[in-house]
Amino acid sequence: MQEPSRIVNVFGNILVPAAAGTLFDDAALCRAMLDFESALARAQAQEEVIPPSAAQAIVAACDSLQLDAAALTEGGRRSGAMAVPLVAALTQALQSAGQADAVRHLHYGATTQDVVDTAQALMTRHALGELLAQVQASVQWLRDEAARHARTPMLARTLLQPAQVTSWGLKCAQWAAPLARSHAQLRQLAQRALALQLGGAVGNLSTLGEAGERVAARMAAQLGLRCAVGNWHTQRDEWMRLGLEVAVLAGSLSKIAGDLVLMSQAEVAEVVAGDAQSGGSSAMPHKRNPVACMQAVAACAQVPHLAATLLSTMAQAHERGMGQWQAEVAVWPQLWVQAFAAASAVNSALSGLRADPQRMARNIDELQGVVCSEALAHTLAVSLGKPAAAALVRSLGAQAIERRTPLVTLLLADPAVAALDASQRSALTTACDPAVAVLPSARLCERMLQAADSDAL
Amino acid sequence: MQEPSRIVNVFGNILVPAAAGTLFDDAALCRAMLDFESALARAQAQEEVIPPSAAQAIVAACDSLQLDAAALTEGGRRSGAMAVPLVAALTQALQSAGQADAVRHLHYGATTQDVVDTAQALMTRHALGELLAQVQASVQWLRDEAARHARTPMLARTLLQPAQVTSWGLKCAQWAAPLARSHAQLRQLAQRALALQLGGAVGNLSTLGEAGERVAARMAAQLGLRCAVGNWHTQRDEWMRLGLEVAVLAGSLSKIAGDLVLMSQAEVAEVVAGDAQSGGSSAMPHKRNPVACMQAVAACAQVPHLAATLLSTMAQAHERGMGQWQAEVAVWPQLWVQAFAAASAVNSALSGLRADPQRMARNIDELQGVVCSEALAHTLAVSLGKPAAAALVRSLGAQAIERRTPLVTLLLADPAVAALDASQRSALTTACDPAVAVLPSARLCERMLQAADSDAL
Amino acid sequence: MQEPSRIVNVFGNILVPAAAGTLFDDAALCRAMLDFESALARAQAQEEVIPPSAAQAIVAACDSLQLDAAALTEGGRRSGAMAVPLVAALTQALQSAGQADAVRHLHYGATTQDVVDTAQALMTRHALGELLAQVQASVQWLRDEAARHARTPMLARTLLQPAQVTSWGLKCAQWAAPLARSHAQLRQLAQRALALQLGGAVGNLSTLGEAGERVAARMAAQLGLRCAVGNWHTQRDEWMRLGLEVAVLAGSLSKIAGDLVLMSQAEVAEVVAGDAQSGGSSAMPHKRNPVACMQAVAACAQVPHLAATLLSTMAQAHERGMGQWQAEVAVWPQLWVQAFAAASAVNSALSGLRADPQRMARNIDELQGVVCSEALAHTLAVSLGKPAAAALVRSLGAQAIERRTPLVTLLLADPAVAALDASQRSALTTACDPAVAVLPSARLCERMLQAADSDAL
Amino acid sequence: MQEPSRIVNVFGNILVPAAAGTLFDDAALCRAMLDFESALARAQAQEEVIPPSAAQAIVAACDSLQLDAAALTEGGRRSGAMAVPLVAALTQALQSAGQADAVRHLHYGATTQDVVDTAQALMTRHALGELLAQVQASVQWLRDEAARHARTPMLARTLLQPAQVTSWGLKCAQWAAPLARSHAQLRQLAQRALALQLGGAVGNLSTLGEAGERVAARMAAQLGLRCAVGNWHTQRDEWMRLGLEVAVLAGSLSKIAGDLVLMSQAEVAEVVAGDAQSGGSSAMPHKRNPVACMQAVAACAQVPHLAATLLSTMAQAHERGMGQWQAEVAVWPQLWVQAFAAASAVNSALSGLRADPQRMARNIDELQGVVCSEALAHTLAVSLGKPAAAALVRSLGAQAIERRTPLVTLLLADPAVAALDASQRSALTTACDPAVAVLPSARLCERMLQAADSDAL
Repeated sequence: MQEPSRIVNVFGNILVPAAAGTLFDDAALCRAMLDFESALARAQAQEEVIPPSAAQAIVAACDSLQLDAAALTEGGRRSGAMAVPLVAALTQALQSAGQADAVRHLHYGATTQDVVDTAQALMTRHALGELLAQVQASVQWLRDEAARHARTPMLARTLLQPAQVTSWGLKCAQWAAPLARSHAQLRQLAQRALALQLGGAVGNLSTLGEAGERVAARMAAQLGLRCAVGNWHTQRDEWMRLGLEVAVLAGSLSKIAGDLVLMSQAEVAEVVAGDAQSGGSSAMPHKRNPVACMQAVAACAQVPHLAATLLSTMAQAHERGMGQWQAEVAVWPQLWVQAFAAASAVNSALSGLRADPQRMARNIDELQGVVCSEALAHTLAVSLGKPAAAALVRSLGAQAIERRTPLVTLLLADPAVAALDASQRSALTTACDPAVAVLPSARLCERMLQAADSDAL
Repeated sequence: MQEPSRIVNVFGNILVPAAAGTLFDDAALCRAMLDFESALARAQAQEEVIPPSAAQAIVAACDSLQLDAAALTEGGRRSGAMAVPLVAALTQALQSAGQADAVRHLHYGATTQDVVDTAQALMTRHALGELLAQVQASVQWLRDEAARHARTPMLARTLLQPAQVTSWGLKCAQWAAPLARSHAQLRQLAQRALALQLGGAVGNLSTLGEAGERVAARMAAQLGLRCAVGNWHTQRDEWMRLGLEVAVLAGSLSKIAGDLVLMSQAEVAEVVAGDAQSGGSSAMPHKRNPVACMQAVAACAQVPHLAATLLSTMAQAHERGMGQWQAEVAVWPQLWVQAFAAASAVNSALSGLRADPQRMARNIDELQGVVCSEALAHTLAVSLGKPAAAALVRSLGAQAIERRTPLVTLLLADPAVAALDASQRSALTTACDPAVAVLPSARLCERMLQAADSDAL
Repeated sequence: MQEPSRIVNVFGNILVPAAAGTLFDDAALCRAMLDFESALARAQAQEEVIPPSAAQAIVAACDSLQLDAAALTEGGRRSGAMAVPLVAALTQALQSAGQADAVRHLHYGATTQDVVDTAQALMTRHALGELLAQVQASVQWLRDEAARHARTPMLARTLLQPAQVTSWGLKCAQWAAPLARSHAQLRQLAQRALALQLGGAVGNLSTLGEAGERVAARMAAQLGLRCAVGNWHTQRDEWMRLGLEVAVLAGSLSKIAGDLVLMSQAEVAEVVAGDAQSGGSSAMPHKRNPVACMQAVAACAQVPHLAATLLSTMAQAHERGMGQWQAEVAVWPQLWVQAFAAASAVNSALSGLRADPQRMARNIDELQGVVCSEALAHTLAVSLGKPAAAALVRSLGAQAIERRTPLVTLLLADPAVAALDASQRSALTTACDPAVAVLPSARLCERMLQAADSDAL
Repeated sequence: MQEPSRIVNVFGNILVPAAAGTLFDDAALCRAMLDFESALARAQAQEEVIPPSAAQAIVAACDSLQLDAAALTEGGRRSGAMAVPLVAALTQALQSAGQADAVRHLHYGATTQDVVDTAQALMTRHALGELLAQVQASVQWLRDEAARHARTPMLARTLLQPAQVTSWGLKCAQWAAPLARSHAQLRQLAQRALALQLGGAVGNLSTLGEAGERVAARMAAQLGLRCAVGNWHTQRDEWMRLGLEVAVLAGSLSKIAGDLVLMSQAEVAEVVAGDAQSGGSSAMPHKRNPVACMQAVAACAQVPHLAATLLSTMAQAHERGMGQWQAEVAVWPQLWVQAFAAASAVNSALSGLRADPQRMARNIDELQGVVCSEALAHTLAVSLGKPAAAALVRSLGAQAIERRTPLVTLLLADPAVAALDASQRSALTTACDPAVAVLPSARLCERMLQAADSDAL
C-alpha cells in the first residue's frame, strides 16, 4: 500500500488517518493548478481575449498532462514562483501536441499567486467536505447518546474534583453544541473564503484590461468558487477566518478528547473509547490504550500554533508577501490535516464508545453524598441559617469520606438536624438522591436537544 | 497623572495608548462584578426566588460598595475563586448596613465562573466599542484618500521588488477593505459572544430549579447581554470566535503598519506618517521615527501568540477548567489591549499622514520604465512573438537600469522594433506612461469604493 | 494593601503571587535606569570623558530623583524612546540642583536601547535570584521525598492507563532532575546574558571614541554585569537563550503540576496538594480545590506562547528593531512573572503535600495484578513460549478485572500453569508482589539521588 | 528525480532544499529503528541477557530487512505504538529466516518510546551535522567579507530610518557572531541531548533487572549516543534545549535574511543576493526576486511556532505522554527541516552576494550629511552649548534634505558657525566625512574578528 502523501514521516503519519494524506497531496495540487489554467483559457476564449483554438489546445493539454511533481518542485524551488515550472510543463505539452501557437495565450495575464491561491481554494473545498462529514457524524452520535442518557447521573467535576451530580446526556449535548456551531460557521465562512484568485502580476488585472472582471466571473463560475471584487493577494482576512474556525473546531474537539481520556482512566472507568481494542502495547499485554483519543490530543496540540503561524503571516508586504505568503501556503494544509485527524479520531473514539452508567453511579456513591453538599446546605439553611448550615455540612462532609459513611446519614444523626421535622429531614434524603439531583441537568439536556432540532446539520 | 491600569510596566505601557489601560482595569472589573450580583438579585426577586427586601439590600450594597482591589486579589489568590472574596466583601457591606438577613440570598445559585465570565463580557462590550471607533476612523480616512488618489500612480512591489505601476488610491482601498470586514464581523460575532454566564456550580442551574432559565433571561436583559441556552462554562467557541476576529483585525492592521514603515524609509519616502514629528531621537537630532507605526508593529507582534494561548486553553476539563479557563481569563484582556493599541496607532499614523505623489512618480521614473516590462512584452509579442519579445525586453531592461536610460528609448532604437510601423511603436510609448499604466488600478479602486458604499460602517 | 505592580488586573493577578508583581515593576525599572545613568557618568569621569564634577552632579541626581512613572510613560509613548523623558527628568533635576552645566554630560554617547536593555538585565538578575530560590526549594523537597519513598510502590501510568508498578520516590526523583538541570543552566546562561548594553546610537560607540570600550568595562564592573565585545542591540541570541531556559523550566514545572492534578483526583487520591485547605468553593462546601496546582497550570499555559513571541522578535531590522525590539522588551517580564508564578505555585503545592502510600497500594491492588502482566508473561514465556504466555496472560487479565480476582490466582488455576513445577509457580507470585515489583524503580531512584549529590544546587 | 520525503506537498517543498527532505525521511527512520533493535540485541548478548545465537539472528535480520513504510504506518496508526508493527516485521523476517527461536528475544525489555526516541536521536545527529555545515559556511563567508569591508561606509538604520554611518564589515561581523555562538552551543547541547533512550515499559528497566544499566551503556557506546542515568521518557528538558537552540539559530538567520531583503530593495540596492539570477517572474521579465531570502524568511516564520508547539508538549502525563509525546515526535523533524532550509537559503543568498560600496556611499550622500547630526551637534556643543547646537543642527538638517544641500555647507554658512575659528570649522567637515565616520565601526569590526579567531568553528 502506497502512502499518497506524507506528513513528514511514519512517526507523524501514524497520528493522522490515511485519508488525511490525500487532502492536499501532490496529485490534488497538480490537478487543481491545471484546472485553474484550463478555466482561465476557457473564460478568456469566451470573452474573446484569446482565440478559441488556443483555448481548446490549452484545455486539452490540461486534461491530459500528467505533471511531474518532482520537476515542478525543482523548478519552483529555483524560481520561487510555482507558475514558472507549470507554464514550462504546459508549454512543452502544447509543443509536443503541435500547438505551439497556443503557447503565448497560456496563463495569460495571470501570476503565480493566482494559480496557487486558487488551487489551495479548490483543495480546501474538498478538505472541508471531508472534515464536515466527520464532524456531522460525531454530532449525530452525541445527540443520540444525549437523548438516551439525559437522566443518567454522573459526577460533574470542576478543577478535576468531584463537584455535583450532572447527567451523561448533558455532557454529550454540551460536547455536541460547539461542534454543530463550527459546522454551521465553516459552511458560512467558506462561501466567502473559497474565492477565485485572479489579479495578475500586481493584482489589478492590468493585462486583461476591461475584460478582466468578466473573465474572473466566468472562471469563478466554472470552478465553483466565489468571485470577489478585486484580488485577495495580500488581504487574507476572509481566508484566515476560515482557517481560524478550523482551529476553533479543533479546540472543541480537544475538549471532548481530553474529557474522554480522563473518563477512561482505570480509576474512573466511566467510558471505554470505541477503539480501545486496537490499542495494544508491545510490552504490557493488559494495556488497552485509548489510541484514537491520543491521536486527537496529539493532533489538536499542534493546531493553536499552526493558527498562530497563519496569523503571523498576515503582514504581507505591499502587493505580494516576501516569505509571508509562501509560509502561509505551506502551513495551511497542515492545519487542515491536523484538524481532520482530530475530527476523525474523535469520531472513531465515539463511534464505538461504551459508557458505563453503573460505574458512573458507583463513582457518585463512593463520595458518600458530599457532592450534594450545596443542595444539603441550601436545604438546611432554611432552618439553621446559612453559616451554620454550611459549617455543619462542611465538617460532616470530611467525616463522611473518612468514615466511608453517607453524609446524609451523619447529618440526620446530628443533634441539630435530629431536631428538625420529618419533612425537613426527608428533604435532606431527597437532596442526596442521584435520580433527583440529575433532574436539572436532564432538563437542560432536553432543552439543548430541542434547540438543536432547529439547526439540523 | 495616574496610570489607571498597567500592562506590566513603563516599558510595556509606552506601546499602548493611555486609554487602553482603562478597558479592563480593576475599577471596570469591580464595577462589572457588582453589576452581575446586582442584576442577579433583582432578577431573582422578580422571579420570587429571593425576597424583594433582600434584593433591594443587595442592589444597594452593590451600588455603594467600593471594592478593595488589593483585598480581592489576595482573597482570590488564596481561594482561587473570585467569588469568595467578592461575596465576603458584600457580606460585610450588608452586615454594616444592618442587612444581615440578605446575606443568605447573596450570589444565590451562582458560581465564581458566572460572575467572572459575565464581568468579562461586560468589559469586552466596552472594549469592543472603543476598538470599533478606531477602526471606523481609519476606514473612513482610507476611503477618502482612496477616492482622492484613485489615479495617483505609484510602484506596486512584489517580494519587495518593484513590479508594475499601481495607484496609491487602490492601495488605500485595499487596506480599508479588511478593516471594514472585521468591523462588520466583530459586531456580528459580538451578538453571540457577549452572553450572560449563569450556570451555577456545575452549569445546570440546579439551585435555582425551574426558575433558573427565567432568572437568566431577566438578568441578560438587564445587563444587555445575550441569553444563551445553558451555560458556556467549558464550551468557549463563541467567545473564541470574537477573540480570533480581533486577532484577524490585528493582522490586517499589521499589514498597513508594515507597508507604511516600508514606504517611510528615507530611500523610498512616499509617505510621512502622521506623528513623525513626535518621534525624535535622544541621540540623533535629524531622526523622525514613525513612532505610531512602531507601536502598531510591536502591538501586532504579540497578537498571534495571544490568540494561540487562548486557543490552547479550549481543552477545559469537565465542568470547569483546571487552569485552562483561568489562563484564558487572564490573557483575554491582553489580546484586546494590544489590538486596541494597534488600531489606535494605525489611526494615529494615518490621521496626519502625508503622501508624496511626486516622490511616488520619481520612484517609478528611476526604474526607467522596466516596471512596464510585462505590458511592453505583451505589446511586442503581437509582432515579434512571445519568446522574442520577452527576450528583448529582458535584455534591454537590464541595460536601461545600468545606463539610466528609459527602456522604451532603448526598445525604439532596437532594429527589430525600429522596423515596426508607427502605431505599433507609439503603443510602446503608451504602455510606459504611468498615467496609462495606472488605469487598471484606478478602475479597481473605484469598484472597491462603490462596493464599500453598500456596507456603510 | 497596595499592589505594587499589575499583570493586567485582578483576574490575572490572582494567578501569580504578590512577590511576582515587584520583579519588574515601575519602581524597579526606574531604579535600574537611574543606576545605568549613574554608572555611565561615573565611568566616563574615570576615563576622563566628562568632568568629575559633572559626574558627581549626575550621580547625586540619580541617587535622589524620584522618577514619575506616569510622566515617563507619557513621554515614552510620545517619543517612542524611553531615554527622551528620562533625560528630560534628569535635566530638570540637575537644573533644580543648580547643576545646569552637567546637563550636556548626561547620557553622553548612549542611546535609549542602552539604558532600557541594561535596566532589563538588572531587573532580570533580581528576578532570576527569586526564581532560583523557588526552584531550589522544590528540588530539595522532592529529593528528600524521593529518599524517603524510594521503595513506596505506586502505579506507573502510560497514556493515562495503569501500566506497571513504579515507586513514588522515583517519581519525585524524576520530577526533581529537570528542575536541577534548569537551575544549573540558568546560572550558566545568566553569566553571558546578563550583560551591559552600551553601543550608542548605532552600536559602534562612535561618540565615545577610543574611550568607549574602557567606559563600558568600568560600567559593567560597577553594575555587576558582563561586558560583551560590542553591543547586542539587534543580536539577541544570548538573551533569548536565558529566556528560553526559563520556558524549559516552566515546561518541567507544568509536568509536575499536571501529574499532581491527576494524582489529586478523588478517584485516584494518591496525594493531597499542600494548599488544598485554602481551595474552598463558593458553592460547594466540600470542595478542596488544588489551587496552587491550578495556578501553576494557568501560568505554564502562557509560557510557550511568550517564548514564541520572543523568538518571533529576533528578526530585528538593521541597527535597531522597528517594533520587534520594543515588543521583546514588553513581553520579557511577562515570561519571568509567569515562570516565577509557576515555580512558586509548585513549591507551595509540594511544601505541604501529603502522599498517601496506602491509597497508592490500594490503587495497585484494585487492578488485580494486571499491571504485572509483562513480568508474568516473561516468567511464563520460559516454560510456555512467548506467544502462548502472552495470550494466556492477556485473556486471564481481562477476566481478573471483570471478576475482581487477582490475575495470579487465575493463572495458578489454569491447567497449563498448574502443570508447572513449584519454583516456577512461586516465581509467578513473586512477580506480582508490589514490594518486589518496586525494586527496579527503587534502584533507579537511588542512582538518581546519588548522581544528584554531585551537582549540589 | 524522486523526492525522497515530503513536507506536505509541492507548495511547501519549494521552500526547502531537496537535501532537507532526507534528514528525517522514512528510509532514515526505518534504518534508525533497526539500528536500535540491532544494538539492543548485541548488547544483551554481551551481557548474557539473551543467547548469542538469538542476537546474531536479530542483527542479521536488522541488517537485511527492508521495512515497508506503508505497512509500518498502518500498523502504528492502529496500535498507536510504533514497536508493534516493527516487532511484527522483524518477527516475520526471523521466521522466514528459520530463526523463530530468536523471536522471543527480540525487542526484549524495551518499549515503543525507547526505539522511537533513540531513532529520533540518531536522525537528529545527522541533521545536526548538515545544519552545522551550512552555518559554518555562512560564518566563514561573513567573516571574510567583514575583513574585506571593515572600513566600507554604509548607512546604519534604526527603526528603518537612516541614523548614522557604520561599516558593511561591521554589519557582516555582527551577523556572523550569533551564528558562531549557535554553532558552539548546538555542539555542546548535543552532547547531552543526543542520548540513548532505554527505559522499558515504564522507564525503570524492570525486565532487564540488574543488567539493565550495563546493557544501556553498551548500546549507547555502539550507537554513539550518550548514556543518561535513567530514562528521559517524560523529562524532555535536555531534548528541548537542543531544539530551542535550533530556534534561536533560526531567529539569527531571520535577522540576516530580513536585512538582506531590505538592502535588496531597488530603492536601496546595496546588495544583490547571490541567487537573484534565478528569481525570474512569470509575468515580469525584469524581476529579479531574491528567492533564497524569501525561502529563508518563509522557513523562519514557522520556527517560533514549532518551538512553542514543542514547549507546550512538555507536560507529559505520568510515565508516558497521552498525545503530548506523540505530538513532539511528529513536530520535531519539522523544526529541523525549517531551520536547515533557512540555513541553506541564507548560505545560498550569501555565497554569491555582491555588495555595492558605491551605492552604499551614494545612499549616505543623498542624505546630505544629516546622518552625522549627532557628531556635528557634539562638535558644535563645545562652542555653542548643547541646546543651541542641537537646535541649529536640527533646523538646518531639515533644510539640507529639502534643498538637497549638504548639511555641513549650510552649517558653515550659518552666522554662528561662521564666527568659529578655522579648526572648529574644519572639525565640522571632518565629522561629516564618511571615511572618518566609519572608523568607530571599523574598530569594532576588527575587535570582533579578533575575538572570533579564538573560537574557531
